Amino acid sequence: MIKIVCVGKIKESFYKEAIAEYVKRISKYQKLTIVELPDFDYDKVKTIYEEEKLIVNNLDKKDYIISLCIEGKKVDSKTFSNLLTDSFTTKSNITFVIGGSYGLGEKVKQMSDLKLSFSDLTFPHQLFRVILLEQIYRGFKIINNESYHK
Amino acid sequence: MIKIVCVGKIKESFYKEAIAEYVKRISKYQKLTIVELPDFDYDKVKTIYEEEKLIVNNLDKKDYIISLCIEGKKVDSKTFSNLLTDSFTTKSNITFVIGGSYGLGEKVKQMSDLKLSFSDLTFPHQLFRVILLEQIYRGFKIINNESYHK
Repeated sequence: MIKIVCVGKIKESFYKEAIAEYVKRISKYQKLTIVELPDFDYDKVKTIYEEEKLIVNNLDKKDYIISLCIEGKKVDSKTFSNLLTDSFTTKSNITFVIGGSYGLGEKVKQMSDLKLSFSDLTFPHQLFRVILLEQIYRGFKIINNESYHK
Repeated sequence: MIKIVCVGKIKESFYKEAIAEYVKRISKYQKLTIVELPDFDYDKVKTIYEEEKLIVNNLDKKDYIISLCIEGKKVDSKTFSNLLTDSFTTKSNITFVIGGSYGLGEKVKQMSDLKLSFSDLTFPHQLFRVILLEQIYRGFKIINNESYHK
């Protein structure tokens, strides 16, 4: 099973539809659940602290935990697909963690088996969720040798 | 003016809506036009060759031409916003070029003033167009010191 733990509501309808579409496509390959936690609007330190408490409550050390953060390792799509395969050979669940506007707290990073960075650019969390889901879907297409250009 | 020269139609309605939304938001800061060229479905060499011919016809050497390709330079969002500012101080137009599934031909790369890479990951061209537009919009928000978290 794949679990995505993320912060903040999706407001734009087009992002909601994009997310629903990729969740549907991924469901052919793996069970996927999205745990959407509330975001906070305090200063940076307090926001990260409050969000971290909720994120940690939704992490299970038995899972392979992959955090998305700017200082993480950069991979290409083929390597990302290998990561999916490798994780599932040792663990039955993969959990991806996407932080809020201010990023992830240290505790979440320490609990992670792997930190990944998709880009040096900053993306809105709504768009980032689409990017991650598309990449997971692409990963399964690569694993299964299925063509996928679009 | 900003021009985006890109290859392939947008099929998914949610991507169409996302693109329309960011085009609308960017229009408060700069005139933006999207030149959407047909894609081809030959082998890699012929596809790149045919797409390149059309792309080159839509490039103007007077513009500041930025090509998006995997071997390009990686920048963060702040540096990307500086690029927008710097380009407009020397040229009146910026042209971004997004290739098709097989990437850009050498001629387009040689005509470019700058090559940028947003990620080591491969994205579908439809999603990539959203990512570029969002980053241009974010760039203008940064330039104008406007808050933008979402």
